[in-house]
Amino acid sequence: MTDDPPPNPALLPAGFVDLLPPDAEAEAAGMEALMRVFAAHGYSRVKPPLLEFEDTLLSGSGAAVAEQAFRLMDPDTRRMMALRPDITPQIARIAATRLADAPRPLRLSYAGLCVLASGGARESDRQISQAGIELIGPDSPEADAEIVALGAEGLAALGVPDVSFDLTMPPLAPALMAEIDYVPDERLALMRALDRKDAAAVARLAGGLAPVLTELLHAAGPAERALAVLAGLDLPPSVRVLSDRLAATVAAITARVPDIRLTVDPIEFRGWQYHTGVCVTVYARGQHQELGRGGRYRSNDDEPACGLTLRPEVLLRAAPVRAGRTRVFLPVDVYPELGRRLRDDGYATVDALGPVTDPAAEARRLGCAMLARGDGIVALD
Amino acid sequence: MTDDPPPNPALLPAGFVDLLPPDAEAEAAGMEALMRVFAAHGYSRVKPPLLEFEDTLLSGSGAAVAEQAFRLMDPDTRRMMALRPDITPQIARIAATRLADAPRPLRLSYAGLCVLASGGARESDRQISQAGIELIGPDSPEADAEIVALGAEGLAALGVPDVSFDLTMPPLAPALMAEIDYVPDERLALMRALDRKDAAAVARLAGGLAPVLTELLHAAGPAERALAVLAGLDLPPSVRVLSDRLAATVAAITARVPDIRLTVDPIEFRGWQYHTGVCVTVYARGQHQELGRGGRYRSNDDEPACGLTLRPEVLLRAAPVRAGRTRVFLPVDVYPELGRRLRDDGYATVDALGPVTDPAAEARRLGCAMLARGDGIVALD
Repeated sequence: MTDDPPPNPALLPAGFVDLLPPDAEAEAAGMEALMRVFAAHGYSRVKPPLLEFEDTLLSGSGAAVAEQAFRLMDPDTRRMMALRPDITPQIARIAATRLADAPRPLRLSYAGLCVLASGGARESDRQISQAGIELIGPDSPEADAEIVALGAEGLAALGVPDVSFDLTMPPLAPALMAEIDYVPDERLALMRALDRKDAAAVARLAGGLAPVLTELLHAAGPAERALAVLAGLDLPPSVRVLSDRLAATVAAITARVPDIRLTVDPIEFRGWQYHTGVCVTVYARGQHQELGRGGRYRSNDDEPACGLTLRPEVLLRAAPVRAGRTRVFLPVDVYPELGRRLRDDGYATVDALGPVTDPAAEARRLGCAMLARGDGIVALD
Repeated sequence: MTDDPPPNPALLPAGFVDLLPPDAEAEAAGMEALMRVFAAHGYSRVKPPLLEFEDTLLSGSGAAVAEQAFRLMDPDTRRMMALRPDITPQIARIAATRLADAPRPLRLSYAGLCVLASGGARESDRQISQAGIELIGPDSPEADAEIVALGAEGLAALGVPDVSFDLTMPPLAPALMAEIDYVPDERLALMRALDRKDAAAVARLAGGLAPVLTELLHAAGPAERALAVLAGLDLPPSVRVLSDRLAATVAAITARVPDIRLTVDPIEFRGWQYHTGVCVTVYARGQHQELGRGGRYRSNDDEPACGLTLRPEVLLRAAPVRAGRTRVFLPVDVYPELGRRLRDDGYATVDALGPVTDPAAEARRLGCAMLARGDGIVALD
C-alpha cells in the first residue's frame, strides 16, 4: 500500500494527444484527400511498419534522425528496434530492396504515424502524422518540379489558402565556402553566422567571399528577384552548376503551376541533413509551423531521389473547417428504408435504441439537426 | 571493427511487414470504407495516441492485454510508457474523461495501428490494424444488435462474402457453475474441459450439472437451434436471465439484418477477458483468422458499453481484389488540360519527365495500360 494518489487517467505523456470529434475525422479526411491526389498522379502506396531493427532503420538517410528515435528491445531476438521518427528512410529501403527491380521513375506514396523520443527544436509534438511522396530514379528539374506541383495540388484539394513554397539549395553555401581555405574554426563561425542570417558577422568572417555571401543573404525573397541576383553574381563553376539547377527547377515548377507562390533563399541550409539538391519548405500565411518539407537526396545505393512530406495535423489547422455529415435522429417507427436513403445522401443517421416520448427533444440532446418523421425528415430549430 | 556481416537491409523483425502496391492501397481503402459506414450511422471518430503511460493504458479494461504490451521509458519523466496492444481501452478512457459530459448513447469510432510485444496464440503479426466502434451508455439487446448490424454493413460494403457472426455469452458458464460448490481444482478442471469442448470430461467432472452442460455443449450451431435448446433447459434464474438476454439480442439482430448468418455457442468463454454480456466473433468462410470481434463490457466508471473491432489487414485477404486506377502515360506534348480531365475521371496519370522516343514502349515499361495522344487516350495491347 502506498499513499500515492491514483494516476490522473486523462493525463498523456507530453507531446501525445487525443484527437476528438470533429478533429480526428477532419485529419483522416485530409490525409485521404492528399493520398487521392498522389494516387491520381500514379504514385503507388506502400506501408512500412511502425518499427524496425535499429541498424536498418537508422542507417543510410535514417542516420540523420537517429537521435530522435525511441528504442525498444525485441524480446524474441534481443536485438534493438526503433520506432520510426520519419518514413522517408523506410521508402528508400523499400525502393532499394523489394522494389529494386521495379521500373524507374518509381513513384511511391505513404501515410502514417511517426514517434519522436523528444520533440524537435521546432515542435512539441512527439507523435506526428506524415503523408508524402517519393520520386526515385530521375535527377532532373522536371522531377523536382513534379514533387512541388503535387504538393501544391494536394494543398489546393484541401482548400489551404495562401500557401508558399520556399526553395533552398543546401549544397550551395558549402560549395562556395570550399573555394576558400578557411581554418576549421573560421569555417564553423561563418556557417553559424550564415545560419542566423547575421550579415555583419558574415561580412567580418567571410574574407574574400564577403561580397558574394552578403549579396546572397539579401537575395532571399520572391523567386524571380532571387534568381536575378544569382544570375548577376560572379560564381565559381562548381557553384554556378547549383545555381543553374535551382533556376531550372524554378522554371519547371512555374511551367507546371503558373500561379504558385515561390520564394528562394539560395544559401539556407539549416535542417537539411541528407539533402543534395533543391529543397522546399511549405508554409501557409498565419501558420508558424511548416505544412511540410522535402527535397532532393541520394537514396540507398546512391540512387537519385526527391520527395515531399506533408503534415496532416498541421494542415488541419490551416485548412478551412469542413462541415461534417448532418445528423438525423431516426425514431424506431420510421419508414425502414429511410435510414439507408439518408445515409446514401450523405447524412449521418442516429438510431433510437427504443421508443422515446419526445423525439425532437431526444434528437436535439444527441446533437441532431434533423428528425425523421414517417418517410421524410424535418429540420429542428 | 568487427567481422559481422552487414545487416540485411530487407530484414524486418518477425511479425512486422512492408505492405507493397497494391496491398497498401487496398488496406487503406478498406479501412476508409468501414469508417464511412460507421460515420454514416452517427459514430464520431476519435484518435488516441499510439502510446500512453503504462499505468493508465494498462489499467481497467486494458489490464487484460497488459502482458502483450511493449514498454518504453519516457526520457523526460522517466515514467514507463506502453505501446497500445488494443485501442478499445483508450476509447473507454476518453469516454470516461474528456467525453464524460457528452450525451449518451455515445457513439465513437476509431482506426489505427496496435503493436504487440509477441504475437498472440492465434497470430504471428505483431503490428495489427484495428477499425472499430464503441457504443457507450445503453445496456440493451438493441445496442448489442446495432454493433453487429454495423459490422455486417461494413463487411458488405467491402464485398466480403460468406460472413458469419458467432455469438457467445461468456458469463453464462461461470454463472451456471456458481450454482454448485465445486472445490477450486474441480472447478478449474471443468472450465478447461468446457474450453476444449471435451464432452466426456465435462460429463465426468460436472456432477449435478453434467446433463445441462452436455446439452449446452451440443447446442452450439445455427442461432435458431441453439436458442431452442436453451429455451428447453431447466436453468436457474441467474442463468435464465443471461439466456433470455442472448435470445433477445438474436431477435434484435435479425430484426435489423434479416439475412445475417448467425451462430450461437452459449457456453464459449475463451478469449473474452473483460466482457460481461453477449460477445461476437466474425468469420468469413475459407479464412482461418477472425475478421473481428467484440461484445459487451463495463467501461471505465462501470458504464455499460459494447463494441466491435474489425481487422483491416485480415479483411484485405477476404475481400475481392479491387481494380486500382487505370494508368495512362502522358508524354510531354499532350493537350495540357487532358491530365486533369483524366484524373477527374478516375485514371492515374503518369507524367513523362522529358521527351521519349517511343511513348508506347515507355508507357508499357511503366505499367500503363493507356497512352495519351493529342487530346485523347489510346489503349495499349
